[in-house]
Amino acid sequence: MAPPVFSAPSTDRSEQEEGSVLRPRFDANGLITAVATDAETGELLMVAHMNAEALERTIATGYAHYWSRSRRALWKKGESSGALQHVREMRVDCDQDAVWLRVECKRRDDTCHTGRTSCFYRIIQAGGGALATVIDPRPTG
Amino acid sequence: MAPPVFSAPSTDRSEQEEGSVLRPRFDANGLITAVATDAETGELLMVAHMNAEALERTIATGYAHYWSRSRRALWKKGESSGALQHVREMRVDCDQDAVWLRVECKRRDDTCHTGRTSCFYRIIQAGGGALATVIDPRPTG
Repeated sequence: MAPPVFSAPSTDRSEQEEGSVLRPRFDANGLITAVATDAETGELLMVAHMNAEALERTIATGYAHYWSRSRRALWKKGESSGALQHVREMRVDCDQDAVWLRVECKRRDDTCHTGRTSCFYRIIQAGGGALATVIDPRPTG
Repeated sequence: MAPPVFSAPSTDRSEQEEGSVLRPRFDANGLITAVATDAETGELLMVAHMNAEALERTIATGYAHYWSRSRRALWKKGESSGALQHVREMRVDCDQDAVWLRVECKRRDDTCHTGRTSCFYRIIQAGGGALATVIDPRPTG
């Protein structure tokens, strides 16, 4: 497969921030940050990364693809678990180093590999001289 | 100032993912990803990064602090613009390399330095053989 082709980031800040051309600013590792929220509920589901191929595959197929930093592999979200993410809308931020995916979850309860709707199930609590987290008591469905 | 002290990430996956101790997993550059949403509207406002000091300052003061990768400096969000972010709730994700801040914005219209409520004001559109972005026509207020 030929490498995906995106326009390069512009050195013109106005073009990068206000222009109509998608110019993803991949970092030194070739990655941008991707944030997925549930298109129905607005809930923040997960934060992951995309390389150029993952971004290209996501746009081309309408299903979220990420780059797994731990496995060093392209990863179609839900390919094995069934928790596919159908992309309803995709946005890019001002300097184009992050994208926001509003997704329809095919298996909502399995978005996080721990078996939860969202990866953000722990609230950070400060107090008593120690930093702790607490599992969110809200239903995850 | 003494360096902030957080517990180290655990090599025990269960402890890292289900334990009650905050164990932020900073990357090779000493950063974690931070996502801020509006505590009132749920809107995704911005994606940024935190080093240990920014995380410690955020928890200690209740106001969002980030690490500016471009300026290589600690950055109290809104310190110059007035667009402070008061943290209502802070969460950490499963492997503890990302945090989610639900914030109360002191100047909502100035969250993005381009003068918008959110940094994600452009929708990615594919079609006609080219990838483009379009400015969201919705009101930003």
